[in-house]
Amino acid sequence: MRAYDIILKKRNGEVLDRNELEYMINGCVNGTIPDYQTAAFLMAIYFRHLSSQETYYLTELMRYSGDTIDLSQISGITVDKHSTGGVGDKTTLVLGPMVASCGAKVAKLSGRGLGHTGGTIDKLESIPGFKTDVGMTKWIQQVNSVGFALAGQTANLVPGDKKIYALRDVTATVDEPSLIASSIMSKKLAGGADAFVLDVKVGSGAFMPNVTAARELAEIMVDIAEKAGKKAVAILTNMDEPLGRKIGNALEVIEAIETLKGNGPEDFSQLCLVLGKYMLNISLSISLEESEQRLKESISTGKAYEKFLEFVKAQSGQTEYIENPNQLLNNKGIYEMKAERDGYICKMHTQNIGIAANLLGAGRESKEDKIDFSVGFDFLAKTGDIIKKDDTIVKVYYNDQARLKDAISMLKKAIIIGDKEYIEKKQLIFDIIG
Amino acid sequence: MRAYDIILKKRNGEVLDRNELEYMINGCVNGTIPDYQTAAFLMAIYFRHLSSQETYYLTELMRYSGDTIDLSQISGITVDKHSTGGVGDKTTLVLGPMVASCGAKVAKLSGRGLGHTGGTIDKLESIPGFKTDVGMTKWIQQVNSVGFALAGQTANLVPGDKKIYALRDVTATVDEPSLIASSIMSKKLAGGADAFVLDVKVGSGAFMPNVTAARELAEIMVDIAEKAGKKAVAILTNMDEPLGRKIGNALEVIEAIETLKGNGPEDFSQLCLVLGKYMLNISLSISLEESEQRLKESISTGKAYEKFLEFVKAQSGQTEYIENPNQLLNNKGIYEMKAERDGYICKMHTQNIGIAANLLGAGRESKEDKIDFSVGFDFLAKTGDIIKKDDTIVKVYYNDQARLKDAISMLKKAIIIGDKEYIEKKQLIFDIIG
Repeated sequence: MRAYDIILKKRNGEVLDRNELEYMINGCVNGTIPDYQTAAFLMAIYFRHLSSQETYYLTELMRYSGDTIDLSQISGITVDKHSTGGVGDKTTLVLGPMVASCGAKVAKLSGRGLGHTGGTIDKLESIPGFKTDVGMTKWIQQVNSVGFALAGQTANLVPGDKKIYALRDVTATVDEPSLIASSIMSKKLAGGADAFVLDVKVGSGAFMPNVTAARELAEIMVDIAEKAGKKAVAILTNMDEPLGRKIGNALEVIEAIETLKGNGPEDFSQLCLVLGKYMLNISLSISLEESEQRLKESISTGKAYEKFLEFVKAQSGQTEYIENPNQLLNNKGIYEMKAERDGYICKMHTQNIGIAANLLGAGRESKEDKIDFSVGFDFLAKTGDIIKKDDTIVKVYYNDQARLKDAISMLKKAIIIGDKEYIEKKQLIFDIIG
Repeated sequence: MRAYDIILKKRNGEVLDRNELEYMINGCVNGTIPDYQTAAFLMAIYFRHLSSQETYYLTELMRYSGDTIDLSQISGITVDKHSTGGVGDKTTLVLGPMVASCGAKVAKLSGRGLGHTGGTIDKLESIPGFKTDVGMTKWIQQVNSVGFALAGQTANLVPGDKKIYALRDVTATVDEPSLIASSIMSKKLAGGADAFVLDVKVGSGAFMPNVTAARELAEIMVDIAEKAGKKAVAILTNMDEPLGRKIGNALEVIEAIETLKGNGPEDFSQLCLVLGKYMLNISLSISLEESEQRLKESISTGKAYEKFLEFVKAQSGQTEYIENPNQLLNNKGIYEMKAERDGYICKMHTQNIGIAANLLGAGRESKEDKIDFSVGFDFLAKTGDIIKKDDTIVKVYYNDQARLKDAISMLKKAIIIGDKEYIEKKQLIFDIIG
């Protein structure tokens, strides 16, 4: 077998068999096939795509390229939730405790934020004392006892995906649906859960610009999960404006607490209810109606919030900060960005809002950057809202004047105010697949 | 400027400007852009192609990536001929002396053979004493005095093309017309001639399998030459059977001598006349009719053959071997391959005939292989010829029994005998472009 012939075959639009894909992927990962051949192969895949079966083979090859996690010590079906990434996305903080309080088992591995989307670990680390380096054994024990545990990734999971993703990242071959889907699903499958709810974000703050592209990705991911003998549902959700009203690590923890107490913003509360409903449905095998009922009760009875406290305590977080969440903030000041005219908010360039939050210090552009947990935005108005001159649109929580100036300059350009009489708000859920 | 953005732009089907191509090509050649990015870029070009202007820029970037040859010391317009490669192609041996005897100036750089096509230098080296490492000064002097000189390539010509070709060769991106054309023309333009006749071979022994593909390549090459301010004509010629009757280094010299004396095989003689006619037409600015007339006279008067002797002598070859060409052969034996049945020759798998000649010892598969000048084939029948059982189809000149056996086995499969009553011979010239 020769790499050349496999590249040629894919270039000519033919379907590869498992052995051929194995030869290429293993060769790339162990270094026997030079990167220039893998790069040409990836570009050929960009143009010719992968069949459903090829995509599954690729996923499995990457899944088993390193360690895999064994969750068999967890009693019951473990369910995982994955988001393709958005701005203001703090769903894990609400979903984990909420579904755990209804009996689901959530063993979550999370990452830190990079680029314009924040990371769940960063958000949780804004709670003093909170630890994510808990070790596999304790992590699994906590899922059994609390129902929800969250750890940073320490095992050598999917080195094959890491290697291939690094090459895609520098050869303009990232945005091919079969490659995105296999990359995501190889990590999810290596993580060991039995069932997956996939939140596929669509819009100006998401990787997928439109519903058609997002649906294609979602269908491929669900297909991979099914081929692997797992349950999966993908939900296409709106990321054309920030999710909820708050962006920034401590601010998002505060908004999560409000939501767990039933006082969250409508869009975010609704999204958590939909995602949670499917998490219960596929892991506990109860109907969607009953799932929804249980979730609503978990909020109204305070069970979900109590579970969050239990979760924070189990991971060494100081729960007094949860009881008095404003203590999480430690800001030099709050700048109120006001409307310069009467009108309507026509559009929010969501990715740029995420970048503005980074400029303020809420995220990192490179792995070495240090995060300022306290800074961020609180949007008092969002897409479709009527505003009057001098109304506050955004409260900007800042600590550094120079950073504030850069962030405001970016933010102003990201929020478009116009005269159009009525802006129809985009629906929150575009489609459900699986 | 970033390689990533240039790859992405080409991947998305956009046209690159000169600066962008320069950044990629120079970066690839000097090593500042890693090979995996160039490989992805080449695969994107395979799918998106290059515009006429992009192809020209690429050619010029490779042309000037190393040394270029200055032929200004040669009086008059120098003309070069290039063949895309075929089996039994000894045209340079006839064309050089023939057009030089009519007043044209031919400064030829040639290569050694590799794979299934032979190299002009190997053929000439079958003449005892013949030297091709003549040095640039002597080479140019000889063009002025004799009209024709041939040297092996010693200068550091087109390292950019060498580097990029090497990458194409291992990433399945060789067969893109704009890349083939720019590779050929960068070498030709660096070689310094003013006018080019391009022999684009079509058929089972050629790189281009059909007339449509060959015409596309020819048009791109002529366009590049024109953009570079040079004259060029491309001629699409048949390579669906070996050219002439003889294959093998000394055998091809013998056939060239026969042709220069007016006794060559019809197809080969005719091809030399057509190519030579255009060489005179574009370099001496005389009509095609007059060019043809002069060439025919050069054969009938013996001038062309005399010029060949003068050329061989100028490059230290022993002309007594030209006067008595059978002395060039030094064979253990001649095996006569006979027809196993009555019928017609329906098809000759020409590339495989070239490979059979290599098996016999006439060529090399790797650069280190040693050539046996004496071995080869003499075809007594070619496509369309009627044959009877036990007629000799090919005389095989051999030196080694084991090699003979391998070659015959290959050769038998390459010559297809059938019952069809009449096989129309393909025309020799398919099209003329420029």
